[in-house]
Amino acid sequence: MLFKVEMTIAIPDSLPAERVTEIKAQEKAYAQQLQRSGKWRHVWRVAGQFKNVSIFDVESHDELHELLTGLPLYPYMTLAIEPLCRHPSSIRDDDS
Amino acid sequence: MLFKVEMTIAIPDSLPAERVTEIKAQEKAYAQQLQRSGKWRHVWRVAGQFKNVSIFDVESHDELHELLTGLPLYPYMTLAIEPLCRHPSSIRDDDS
Amino acid sequence: MLFKVEMTIAIPDSLPAERVTEIKAQEKAYAQQLQRSGKWRHVWRVAGQFKNVSIFDVESHDELHELLTGLPLYPYMTLAIEPLCRHPSSIRDDDS
Amino acid sequence: MLFKVEMTIAIPDSLPAERVTEIKAQEKAYAQQLQRSGKWRHVWRVAGQFKNVSIFDVESHDELHELLTGLPLYPYMTLAIEPLCRHPSSIRDDDS
Amino acid sequence: MLFKVEMTIAIPDSLPAERVTEIKAQEKAYAQQLQRSGKWRHVWRVAGQFKNVSIFDVESHDELHELLTGLPLYPYMTLAIEPLCRHPSSIRDDDS
Amino acid sequence: MLFKVEMTIAIPDSLPAERVTEIKAQEKAYAQQLQRSGKWRHVWRVAGQFKNVSIFDVESHDELHELLTGLPLYPYMTLAIEPLCRHPSSIRDDDS
Amino acid sequence: MLFKVEMTIAIPDSLPAERVTEIKAQEKAYAQQLQRSGKWRHVWRVAGQFKNVSIFDVESHDELHELLTGLPLYPYMTLAIEPLCRHPSSIRDDDS
Amino acid sequence: MLFKVEMTIAIPDSLPAERVTEIKAQEKAYAQQLQRSGKWRHVWRVAGQFKNVSIFDVESHDELHELLTGLPLYPYMTLAIEPLCRHPSSIRDDDS
Amino acid sequence: MLFKVEMTIAIPDSLPAERVTEIKAQEKAYAQQLQRSGKWRHVWRVAGQFKNVSIFDVESHDELHELLTGLPLYPYMTLAIEPLCRHPSSIRDDDS
Amino acid sequence: MLFKVEMTIAIPDSLPAERVTEIKAQEKAYAQQLQRSGKWRHVWRVAGQFKNVSIFDVESHDELHELLTGLPLYPYMTLAIEPLCRHPSSIRDDDS
Repeated sequence: MLFKVEMTIAIPDSLPAERVTEIKAQEKAYAQQLQRSGKWRHVWRVAGQFKNVSIFDVESHDELHELLTGLPLYPYMTLAIEPLCRHPSSIRDDDS
Repeated sequence: MLFKVEMTIAIPDSLPAERVTEIKAQEKAYAQQLQRSGKWRHVWRVAGQFKNVSIFDVESHDELHELLTGLPLYPYMTLAIEPLCRHPSSIRDDDS
Repeated sequence: MLFKVEMTIAIPDSLPAERVTEIKAQEKAYAQQLQRSGKWRHVWRVAGQFKNVSIFDVESHDELHELLTGLPLYPYMTLAIEPLCRHPSSIRDDDS
Repeated sequence: MLFKVEMTIAIPDSLPAERVTEIKAQEKAYAQQLQRSGKWRHVWRVAGQFKNVSIFDVESHDELHELLTGLPLYPYMTLAIEPLCRHPSSIRDDDS
Repeated sequence: MLFKVEMTIAIPDSLPAERVTEIKAQEKAYAQQLQRSGKWRHVWRVAGQFKNVSIFDVESHDELHELLTGLPLYPYMTLAIEPLCRHPSSIRDDDS
Repeated sequence: MLFKVEMTIAIPDSLPAERVTEIKAQEKAYAQQLQRSGKWRHVWRVAGQFKNVSIFDVESHDELHELLTGLPLYPYMTLAIEPLCRHPSSIRDDDS
Repeated sequence: MLFKVEMTIAIPDSLPAERVTEIKAQEKAYAQQLQRSGKWRHVWRVAGQFKNVSIFDVESHDELHELLTGLPLYPYMTLAIEPLCRHPSSIRDDDS
Repeated sequence: MLFKVEMTIAIPDSLPAERVTEIKAQEKAYAQQLQRSGKWRHVWRVAGQFKNVSIFDVESHDELHELLTGLPLYPYMTLAIEPLCRHPSSIRDDDS
Repeated sequence: MLFKVEMTIAIPDSLPAERVTEIKAQEKAYAQQLQRSGKWRHVWRVAGQFKNVSIFDVESHDELHELLTGLPLYPYMTLAIEPLCRHPSSIRDDDS
Repeated sequence: MLFKVEMTIAIPDSLPAERVTEIKAQEKAYAQQLQRSGKWRHVWRVAGQFKNVSIFDVESHDELHELLTGLPLYPYMTLAIEPLCRHPSSIRDDDS
């Protein structure tokens, strides 16, 4: 089942620069692995912001919770989550 | 270029039921035509709400304005629009 | 899967009193049928308000959408929806 | 009498990791003790968030205050509290 | 048990002036009866507004719901309700 | 003249525990002295929160300012203040 | 004692134009009479808006309530009211 | 030309007490000099808050910017600014 | 002196279509006359919305008030107004 | 294509004064270079605030993202971004 997730990231000044670089690399690896598995369907960056718009496809709310709280950047994120379903006007089979 | 558009619809009670049915049919036809043209890339319904989350791919801001204000349900919509760009972690070629 | 749904109801003055009585009776019958089916797990009234706090247990987001938009009072509701999962501290087997 | 309580938790970065682990263990023990006593009727996690939705059943407002301020995570919580009563459409005897 | 209730009143223009006068008279009679019974402990007007700040003392949330929804002006009110308890610094015996 | 004052208190983590204990003791002593003088008419705790609802009776706005800014916890408070007057439906002589 | 009052006016479309003209004339006469009495100390228009910023000087909260609710445009106003006192840096004797 | 400026001040705990005293003395001197020059027409304290309501009379927006950013307390202020003009109902010549 | 003005327009359904067409034509003529006079420096449409972002250059707040309230669409607008000044980093002589 | 960008800047107290001076000089140089290139069309300061209103003209959302995140003050900014298009009433050829 599908969820729109918007992640807004605010990394505190106090985090050392190397640690930030390290976390971002881990985040990218983890994000790409979830995309390859089909769980993280889409991810777009919001222009000019440290924020993304994502579509997740999960088996359960427990799985959604695990995937999101497992994100290396999770402690620095504000999340907005909305359950989605197929739109009756949609013509794409892969959007359900 | 890509935009996330969220459309929340509130049809006033005063609109006659047949008119509502008619507008919704026009909306669906127009939405599917825009999807077929590739301008309206994705559309999902927000579960439990009269609201959708959409991704548009347009040539210009003028085109975005024309497409959205041409929606038959436009007079009854509240729109939230955000410019998107390819996410550096994205692995999908068709999300840029 | 579980959702918390909060429904705040505002019936317009223009709706005739008999129609209101009729809709409320339909709402009650429909709500009790959904409770009996196990789909609508809990419903509490917020004291002093025309508002309830509910727990739904559905198979899919489509089902959630259908159940909620099928409510006779749906056109007069504002809905707040949040996906829930079992809490690791919970001791009740029937809260997952 | 019943209350819906929503607890959103934000633990400051400055708290040492061992202290966090310790407080969470205390929180879990305390939460389960209150559940066993029947005072904390339900607790669900909001998917993707460090937040729960709970139902408390207390004798008085003083008792509610004591139970909540006694939570080991209380200093790191934002609380939203609403008084509930039995819904006239409810069919569950144990929801009053 | 005590509740602070703030009632903000907005009577629609469409209500005939005589009906408004009638409802206000009923409201006053009902409010004074509840005060005499001890259920409605205090009521103050907010200066310059059609709004009051009240303290209720009720046996249960059901009773609170009944008293408030029974107010003749209830359909035109927005209510803000907060559960109160005795303050540890209070020196008044009648404020618990 | 009467004012409703709501005080929400947030003490920073950085304040040493003994200092907090000391300030709270001073606050209690000052609050009780103001109550005895009749200036601080009522004080209730909001259940589950570090917040109170109070009624002050002062001679002037200057006096209100002095009393409130003199509170030992004042530097840690957010205040919401509203001028009150006797409600035409009130039956209590001591609420004006 | 002094109050800052901000009045934002929204006259409904349904009010006939002559009635609007009439009410505005009454409002102006009443406002000037209150200014002459010294009760309404200052009034400025917010540029580009149907809104004013005013300073009132009244004997009591009851008087403030009477003056404001007596305004011919009162039914169409949203009011924001704040109690003022002399500023310790002020050099004007007439601002206390 | 006239502006209403509301200044809300929040001095961080980390600023040493002597530095605060010093800045406040500078602020007072500067404020009184601007009042004497006629640029800062009125200043009132909001009762119970570390906030003022002020009326400025400046030659240009550049001058307004310079005066405000020159305030010793400026780094600790949140400002709300609105352009004012003479009210057609005003009877005071010195309020334009 | 410069002001940023944002105008969001909401024309009520009840206004007849011909009247809307007429007002929009008047608005356009008036807007172009003000642009030619140099008072209305810039106007851009916000894509997808019935909203514009404008820069005005006026002699006084009174003039700003007159120009804006003289707009044929003014009764249907919500306005957000901010005073601007030349930015110290600006390289355009015509932006002051 | 055009965007309105509003940048509100809040530099933390912890940043050393020399570092602030350095960053501001870099910001000014970078801003002027972008203005010369035609990418940053307009910039105005909001009077009394550490905030600007800007118009950008970019080739793509990726370019907008790069330009904005490349600002030396970017880590200390809150950004509000809106896509613009030519207004049908505009008479300036250089505002499209």
